[in-house]
Amino acid sequence: MDRFTLDWEDVADEAAAFVRGRMVAAHRDRMVIGLSGGIDSAVSAFIATRAMGADSLRAFMLPYRTSSDRSMADAQKVADALGVDHEAIEISPMVDAYFERYPDAERLRRANMMARQRMAVLYDQSERLGALVVGTGNLTEALLGYTTLWGDMACAFDPIGDLYKTQVRRLAEHLGVPESVRAKAPTADLWQGQTDEGELGFSYDTADEVLSRLVDDEMTVQQVVAEGFEEAVVERIAAMMRASGFKRCMPPVPSLRRLRA
Amino acid sequence: MDRFTLDWEDVADEAAAFVRGRMVAAHRDRMVIGLSGGIDSAVSAFIATRAMGADSLRAFMLPYRTSSDRSMADAQKVADALGVDHEAIEISPMVDAYFERYPDAERLRRANMMARQRMAVLYDQSERLGALVVGTGNLTEALLGYTTLWGDMACAFDPIGDLYKTQVRRLAEHLGVPESVRAKAPTADLWQGQTDEGELGFSYDTADEVLSRLVDDEMTVQQVVAEGFEEAVVERIAAMMRASGFKRCMPPVPSLRRLRA
Repeated sequence: MDRFTLDWEDVADEAAAFVRGRMVAAHRDRMVIGLSGGIDSAVSAFIATRAMGADSLRAFMLPYRTSSDRSMADAQKVADALGVDHEAIEISPMVDAYFERYPDAERLRRANMMARQRMAVLYDQSERLGALVVGTGNLTEALLGYTTLWGDMACAFDPIGDLYKTQVRRLAEHLGVPESVRAKAPTADLWQGQTDEGELGFSYDTADEVLSRLVDDEMTVQQVVAEGFEEAVVERIAAMMRASGFKRCMPPVPSLRRLRA
Repeated sequence: MDRFTLDWEDVADEAAAFVRGRMVAAHRDRMVIGLSGGIDSAVSAFIATRAMGADSLRAFMLPYRTSSDRSMADAQKVADALGVDHEAIEISPMVDAYFERYPDAERLRRANMMARQRMAVLYDQSERLGALVVGTGNLTEALLGYTTLWGDMACAFDPIGDLYKTQVRRLAEHLGVPESVRAKAPTADLWQGQTDEGELGFSYDTADEVLSRLVDDEMTVQQVVAEGFEEAVVERIAAMMRASGFKRCMPPVPSLRRLRA
């Protein structure tokens, strides 16, 4: 029992009930999801099929030409474990068509473009199939802003959006997500050798311990540091959270209609 | 003086102050915008330059191969009137690369893909230039859900998002938006001969009269009909508003962390 412990069977049931509620509200009975081979999309797919059955979900692998074979193999394992239909659609032609004019574009630009192309493909598939797009974003990445705006955060609903990465991992174990998916280092696979924790400069374990104190316990940075966490890391996490608020809300609009003549 | 009359000089100033506020908050001094040749993006560009100066804005024309020459010419007129740098980037290669696998895809799928490709290009340009993306969506289309989710609605801030189309038109006249842009029938130019009003089945004038009664005056459908509006149209507008709520908020997330073991 620690601060991240939940009743995982209750969590799975509640998340599934939420999915059913959203589907009923939208008068839809089909869903699409992008399977990356990672744990977040795996757990989201497990919840979606728990809610609506395997026949209601269609999974898409959306590799770029530099994506690793491991990602594809792990996505395949998830689809097989659930018995869901799946299909691979390469995003390379779309991404490469654009970057022809910017051969030297840095990898962050390419990474964001890839995330947005995946969104565009998933949404087109949802229209083609009369389906809703299942989200795959967790709370940790949302709070850190470690997402692509209008890219991987875009969905009709997000079953795991209230769970820290630490909690997604435990739920994955409870649900029986394939070991290969659970054991590997988290990566967006946006360039070779990328790992989330390498890029962030801290582990998800640390991020979650710090975030939950800042957000749930409403502690100050100083109070978190007093609990034994490295000051530079806590400051960095707090700064990332502050700087990414714009990714967690709809675009702001000024109040103009009150300006009567 | 009617229900849409505002003090247009105050509106322009307030919208510009809002833009400056968002730029300061984001520590940015550059903006990008997509100019379609239509009145909404024209007014948004006028507000953006009023706020930050013409040098701070870079305009992009993002035609698809079926886009009309008139759209491009009108976008050019807006850029010229403001004296802003501009550039055209064709989205055809990206869109066509995807639809090669779906040669019979209906035009709505193509239209949504175009809107999302424009978003992806604008956001990449914003990263390339260290800029923010200026939104161009009005209140009428937001309430009707007459937008592409994660497409044309995606932006860092939306200066005209609180104004009905009727009000955008009046503000455009006040600001001196080129006549050619103001005079033509509104169109997303997503297929040849498309006009918004033809597709919607009612005029923006009617939409705004009805929407402002439903939203601002909190009237029921029956009350609006009693004021002399056609019942089928009022019902249709109310239904569009109800059905498009999901486009006006971030993806919903279930409440799971309360489920302690």
